[in-house]
Amino acid sequence: MRTLKGWTGPKIVDGLQIEGTFRAHQVPLANVRDNPEHLKLLEQWMKSYRPEELFDWNGRFDAEVAKLAPRGHRRMSANPIANGGEFPEPLVIPEYTQYAVAMKDHGAVVVENTKCFGAMMRDIFKRNEKQRNFRLFCPDETNSNRLGDVFDVENRCLVSKIYPYDDHVAADGRVMEVLSEHNQEGWLEGYTLTGRHGIFATYEAFAMIVDSMTAQHAKWLKTCHTELPWRRPVPSLNYLLTSTCWRNDHNGFSHQGPGFIDSILTKQGIIIRIYLPPDANCLLSVADHCLRTHNYINLIVIDKQPHLQYLDIDDARGHCARGASRWDWASNDHDGKPDIILACAGDVSTMETLAAAWLLRKHLPAMKVRVVNVVDLMRLWPPDVHPHGMDEETFISLFTGTTDVVFAFHGYPRAVHEILHGRTNASRFHVRGYMEEGTTTTPFDMVVLNKTSRFHLCLEALRRASTIEASGQLIQLCQESLERHRKYVVEHLEDIPEIANWKWTDA
Amino acid sequence: MRTLKGWTGPKIVDGLQIEGTFRAHQVPLANVRDNPEHLKLLEQWMKSYRPEELFDWNGRFDAEVAKLAPRGHRRMSANPIANGGEFPEPLVIPEYTQYAVAMKDHGAVVVENTKCFGAMMRDIFKRNEKQRNFRLFCPDETNSNRLGDVFDVENRCLVSKIYPYDDHVAADGRVMEVLSEHNQEGWLEGYTLTGRHGIFATYEAFAMIVDSMTAQHAKWLKTCHTELPWRRPVPSLNYLLTSTCWRNDHNGFSHQGPGFIDSILTKQGIIIRIYLPPDANCLLSVADHCLRTHNYINLIVIDKQPHLQYLDIDDARGHCARGASRWDWASNDHDGKPDIILACAGDVSTMETLAAAWLLRKHLPAMKVRVVNVVDLMRLWPPDVHPHGMDEETFISLFTGTTDVVFAFHGYPRAVHEILHGRTNASRFHVRGYMEEGTTTTPFDMVVLNKTSRFHLCLEALRRASTIEASGQLIQLCQESLERHRKYVVEHLEDIPEIANWKWTDA
Repeated sequence: MRTLKGWTGPKIVDGLQIEGTFRAHQVPLANVRDNPEHLKLLEQWMKSYRPEELFDWNGRFDAEVAKLAPRGHRRMSANPIANGGEFPEPLVIPEYTQYAVAMKDHGAVVVENTKCFGAMMRDIFKRNEKQRNFRLFCPDETNSNRLGDVFDVENRCLVSKIYPYDDHVAADGRVMEVLSEHNQEGWLEGYTLTGRHGIFATYEAFAMIVDSMTAQHAKWLKTCHTELPWRRPVPSLNYLLTSTCWRNDHNGFSHQGPGFIDSILTKQGIIIRIYLPPDANCLLSVADHCLRTHNYINLIVIDKQPHLQYLDIDDARGHCARGASRWDWASNDHDGKPDIILACAGDVSTMETLAAAWLLRKHLPAMKVRVVNVVDLMRLWPPDVHPHGMDEETFISLFTGTTDVVFAFHGYPRAVHEILHGRTNASRFHVRGYMEEGTTTTPFDMVVLNKTSRFHLCLEALRRASTIEASGQLIQLCQESLERHRKYVVEHLEDIPEIANWKWTDA
Repeated sequence: MRTLKGWTGPKIVDGLQIEGTFRAHQVPLANVRDNPEHLKLLEQWMKSYRPEELFDWNGRFDAEVAKLAPRGHRRMSANPIANGGEFPEPLVIPEYTQYAVAMKDHGAVVVENTKCFGAMMRDIFKRNEKQRNFRLFCPDETNSNRLGDVFDVENRCLVSKIYPYDDHVAADGRVMEVLSEHNQEGWLEGYTLTGRHGIFATYEAFAMIVDSMTAQHAKWLKTCHTELPWRRPVPSLNYLLTSTCWRNDHNGFSHQGPGFIDSILTKQGIIIRIYLPPDANCLLSVADHCLRTHNYINLIVIDKQPHLQYLDIDDARGHCARGASRWDWASNDHDGKPDIILACAGDVSTMETLAAAWLLRKHLPAMKVRVVNVVDLMRLWPPDVHPHGMDEETFISLFTGTTDVVFAFHGYPRAVHEILHGRTNASRFHVRGYMEEGTTTTPFDMVVLNKTSRFHLCLEALRRASTIEASGQLIQLCQESLERHRKYVVEHLEDIPEIANWKWTDA
């Protein structure tokens, strides 16, 4: 049926046409109390519904007509399909540890961070083949995000004509691959509302395209959670942001934007979860957790390209469960009194932090350095702001109450200050992160441009540490290294090998 | 011309079709160094351009062919139309003070905040009639945003068929009114890049829809500003966010979202400006300033509905020039030693703050209360972060170095902590703002739900103030008022008249 805008409203008011025009979207009769002509028009309009046929003299709705209304599950608001699904099936998730990266030493092996998770998703598709209740939403694109293992068992979805040269495309494919973030976001939202499971994997910068949609979904979840106990839980809205700002050195400035974190941060703590796994094994643990949850917006940020690996799968499990840990193997403050704390969240930030700790320990072995990695960003909030927020005792056990903290953050640095307000001596946190500097350049140049390289972190640590002597040589080394980098990168169009190939080694 | 994807690339590689398929978007020959077959395909492809016809034996480009390339202004990159315009005309802006709201007393008159600016824009259209270099972009919609005075002299633009019942619609209309924020944003961006002027007026919550576009424009402006001195300045991208979260009580939760502020905050200080005029006269002053600037993203947030007016036009001019001021008429700390500072940014937040100050002064006249209003949010940043950032001396003259500050903020409260990091004793700022609580309710219930009402501010002030005695009665009054509000609003579906009609009166 197609009707006129404002059909059954007053047709003309004060000589102006209402029905069929934009005015029907406004208040057609603004002043019925004082304007007898308007009141008359209102009466005519209301009478056009012939209430005498619909209600009896007691004002009761006519029983015959009332029968027309649907009953039970046929009422739109009571349709179980739109309320968490009629027969929601829990997602069967294989034991994630079987996809782990094997490791002997910390920070020595290089692996594409998202690849193991692709294998895990392949098996999720397999294990849930009968239930048909999992989909991967990936605008651009599954293979490029290193998740291509899913095509061993699953196809891309296309309901229009399929050509012979199409690759893993089928009408019943469950990998949704179309270059429209709006489309993908809308599909995933609707899919979870029917009790089914999915994940939206996209370039980090392009998640911003749909942040207003995410905001509305957050409002939906919050309202259901706090005000509508009759609504069933729905699987969480899961995001995997790959191709991050630090590794879009080839795509350039337009593809560098970690602002989705900032958008998510504004939502209520009962809804949002933000994870920055430092490596592939931590991603497996975090993803396993997120896919099992309901009623949340889970944001996972990790780059798809080859990166150093830090934790074996057992350590990763423990670290992710804690959400933030002191990394013993990278720290030398074994008496518990660090001169400086180097904290980090995010894969590249973690590497630069470890390289800074390595430099400090190598050149100033007497200096007590503590390295803290944060995988669950929400642990930093005060506990009254977010349910994951650690109590102040735990916070102080990680960050002490007084030692300065140089914090390398994956995203915009001031987001961390927004989170830390209310913590003991929050002003001692000195955060580096993405500050909207970038171009088409090398990976290390990206951290240099944004003043969050190992050398910048090292210099900041020396500036802030409590008691440092004889640091002049290291300061000079850092400054010279930055200068050498600047020249080298212009001449060779790639990073200095000793920087590009840096690995952790014990002091 | 329509061509195949990957046309002139290798047609088939390793048995897989490249040309005309998705593979043409990737790297068609991944391994030419080690794979002789790939190398041969590359050679064939390169030779298909017949370089021997295009270059001489010295490698010089053939002069005859080179002549085909356009010269001077016909080169795409040198087209002056796309570089700030061929003959950019400055916008003629009438003296803004003539649209001022006349005032005798502070906080006594109620006016629709954006209406005067509508009259000012009407005259901007008039004064620039010949230059035709100003457009208003307004998705939904000019009249509803109280800017309808522009239709005295200008029409809505529609190049398709116009019907007799259409209202102020013409093919050459310069008011762009279509309910697509994406469309409007793109039009305005392009329009300013050609050296012409405009403003995008929209519901606050819906600005989020285009924040990823704004992010890209910010990158453009930043790059032009810092790296491309040959690019001409372009008029700023101006936003007027009306229909704010605090006055979308009738539209409800979905229309409440001040997150555009948070998105803008992540950009570089040299690009962004955020203004929260507390009343209509301050809006005139701020808008006059913004429309004269180049190369910025100017965000103005003020609600369209009737609000109390605080400053006459002379005070407004001075206040906006300072960006933040102690409001003498609302403060009683004339010795300069306040017990508490009540700060505010945003129209509704200002009203609630003043009402809180009024309550405190009425019930505890011995208490020294200072009221500080912030119209230019950027003044709060440390000066190394934003060029508007006030020096620490000025900051301390406004906020002291030690007194607790209860800050009522228009947007998400933690955005203020993000800004204040680095200021003296930043932890003494206690910020209230929109915390994602809302529904279809009354205006005052919105500030109650978000714990930023006059009573909440008053209670927080009493909790934080340095030396307060005998505040028990006022605490009780606030708690009882909140309880009375809760009951009243459920029964009457509107606010308690003494709250809804509150005006400032001198103590």
